[in-house]
Amino acid sequence: MDGRMGAISPPGRLAEPAEGISPEELALATRNHGMPLESLRYDLTPPGLHYVLVHYDIPAADAHTWALTLGGRVRTPLTLDMAALRSFPSATHRVTMECAGNGRARLTPRPVSQPWLVEGIGTAEWTGVPLRTLLAACGVAPGSVEVVFTGADHGLERGVEQDYRRSLPLEVATGRDPEVMVAYAMNGAPLPPQHGYPLRLVVPGWYGMAQVKWLRDITVIDTEFTGFQQQVAYRYRQAADDPGEAVTRIAPRALMVPPGFPDFMSRTRVVRPGPHFLEGRAWSGLAPVVRVEVSTDASRGWYDAELDVPPHGHDWAWRHWQAPWTATPGTHVLSVRATDAEGNSQPLEQSWNRGGFGNNLVQRVEVLCEAAASPEDGDPGTADAAGHTESPTRSGTGTRSGHGS
Amino acid sequence: MDGRMGAISPPGRLAEPAEGISPEELALATRNHGMPLESLRYDLTPPGLHYVLVHYDIPAADAHTWALTLGGRVRTPLTLDMAALRSFPSATHRVTMECAGNGRARLTPRPVSQPWLVEGIGTAEWTGVPLRTLLAACGVAPGSVEVVFTGADHGLERGVEQDYRRSLPLEVATGRDPEVMVAYAMNGAPLPPQHGYPLRLVVPGWYGMAQVKWLRDITVIDTEFTGFQQQVAYRYRQAADDPGEAVTRIAPRALMVPPGFPDFMSRTRVVRPGPHFLEGRAWSGLAPVVRVEVSTDASRGWYDAELDVPPHGHDWAWRHWQAPWTATPGTHVLSVRATDAEGNSQPLEQSWNRGGFGNNLVQRVEVLCEAAASPEDGDPGTADAAGHTESPTRSGTGTRSGHGS
Repeated sequence: MDGRMGAISPPGRLAEPAEGISPEELALATRNHGMPLESLRYDLTPPGLHYVLVHYDIPAADAHTWALTLGGRVRTPLTLDMAALRSFPSATHRVTMECAGNGRARLTPRPVSQPWLVEGIGTAEWTGVPLRTLLAACGVAPGSVEVVFTGADHGLERGVEQDYRRSLPLEVATGRDPEVMVAYAMNGAPLPPQHGYPLRLVVPGWYGMAQVKWLRDITVIDTEFTGFQQQVAYRYRQAADDPGEAVTRIAPRALMVPPGFPDFMSRTRVVRPGPHFLEGRAWSGLAPVVRVEVSTDASRGWYDAELDVPPHGHDWAWRHWQAPWTATPGTHVLSVRATDAEGNSQPLEQSWNRGGFGNNLVQRVEVLCEAAASPEDGDPGTADAAGHTESPTRSGTGTRSGHGS
Repeated sequence: MDGRMGAISPPGRLAEPAEGISPEELALATRNHGMPLESLRYDLTPPGLHYVLVHYDIPAADAHTWALTLGGRVRTPLTLDMAALRSFPSATHRVTMECAGNGRARLTPRPVSQPWLVEGIGTAEWTGVPLRTLLAACGVAPGSVEVVFTGADHGLERGVEQDYRRSLPLEVATGRDPEVMVAYAMNGAPLPPQHGYPLRLVVPGWYGMAQVKWLRDITVIDTEFTGFQQQVAYRYRQAADDPGEAVTRIAPRALMVPPGFPDFMSRTRVVRPGPHFLEGRAWSGLAPVVRVEVSTDASRGWYDAELDVPPHGHDWAWRHWQAPWTATPGTHVLSVRATDAEGNSQPLEQSWNRGGFGNNLVQRVEVLCEAAASPEDGDPGTADAAGHTESPTRSGTGTRSGHGS
């Protein structure tokens, strides 16, 4: 794309060695957001805490007038409104989603795009119609190879004006496990606008780019789909001219609830000396997670965490883990890593690709262990039995001196 | 605070002239998030799109065991569980909230903190018990001057370990308009975790720092509260040693839904030539907004927008506005500004303070107006009747060539 459109939509680039986060990356970060890691405490992520990545704008959408078209190499093209969709038998799956670019902002050099640290995650129960049910209803023609999904979100990206559009191989689209769904509910409620209201694709085990939101069209084709999001973006490549490999399933990752409490600005954690339980979640889109290990000495030694096996078999959702840790005064680097049933695990050194995709570097949580401020450090009137303090200023004194007076 | 705790919690600072957004600012931006501006289309912001600012962690909270204590200079201290709170007569108010630091990241020099652009906003209907009802139930003692509110969120900030804690003058706390509330519902549902579940304070017309979340204690005092968030943070000051003035009510602001569609990375907007309706919202915590003006020539000329007067009198919520605009090919800078009934308006040049508070600089939206790519620029098969295109690559061809074949 040339001219003025090209000028506002330049090619991808890598950040310079000492380049801070740019205004453009910040503009993406203030719109899209991760899941605050303390939310790892919830089995199901509340919608407002689940990560969100929207390439363009959230489209205006009305479930009353929404139509999903199914066509291409099918016997009977269909146009379904929401009532028609709901008339098909439904399925519900608990699915952990992760942005393919999660971890990108920690890479060196940093690919300039949505600047995720490690929070581009979330888990929800999605309810909808299995895709293979819909494809069976329209009758896929012999010789078909892929299914293309088009969202209502429209924009310009790296010089290409487009609707957001992705494909799946026919055998994935019609598979039973994972069961791909056209979903209309998240955690039992209509989809929130930012998660695709009123309809989205859910592809358990795959990174977020496959989960097309605001789904308006499904087209069966007999060739390989060559759309931008398939052949240009979302490829593992080392150089800009490398054709690369497609980004597909989620690599294993474990994350912990950062223990203790944070400093507002540095986000460094503070814990009290003594016994703690570290806890978090672990997942893999390649195979069930079977082992989680914890390190409390900057990845030198590792010990096994206790891993929950979910009672109802949520193969595509994260698993809870916990591990004891006795904190001693000083600074500590805590880490956790997951291994799945196929032996996939997480690296201690970054593996790099030009898009910053599929990163699953082991998490590092820096923690300062220090006893609570003793009364002589502040004002005894400001510390109550629950250990709530406000020191070293005398702030808070007003509150406490008011008690009972 | 000295030593290791002080080292991880340094004083506030200003960014160096060419300093990009720092890793610490990014860590805040990936947790907290703004309201994507296309969400200005909604009268009420869905919870997952409403801005969120959490100083420390979102506390684990259970409504079944939550207790709100009321004490200090009162006749009858009270401890209320959620059922007891719900037994009081309730009120519901539609309130626009804005973070006091909204706009901070565009300031020069930039105060290093949560790096808001302009999205730190949202509007919700909050339901709860008027605070004056609760204060009447416990009986405020003569000579009381302030009411202190304590949240369950605990952290370290600029060297001070604290629970988040703010005060209001007694006359504001007991006022009828705005009616301060202890809220347990947002848009008719329980509060989401990130908005204060199960209880928060709502102070209509005030910036977000007053809206204490995870509210666990209310204490009446007879002195001026000197807590960190009152006397150290959230002050308008020009220098670090300036005592400054308290940040209180929201300055007027208007924002527009950015027209057209965006480029993914630069976020620059593209519109087609021809007639458009610009629209958005405008609000002020000082007085009702009475005028909204639009500029389409980089703030040289201004014309009046049509301003909706809400039918049910939502004095503390934003008002919708719209204005026609005929786009011609080329680049344009669109702006909008609000004026309230007391004559307060928005500056064209930044006014600066060390915390980056109360900013209401006029919004600038850069727009490129260009006709849709003509068929010869790409593949005619990739453009459909709705103007959906994917050009200049041949991507998408696969989809369309599949139609009817």
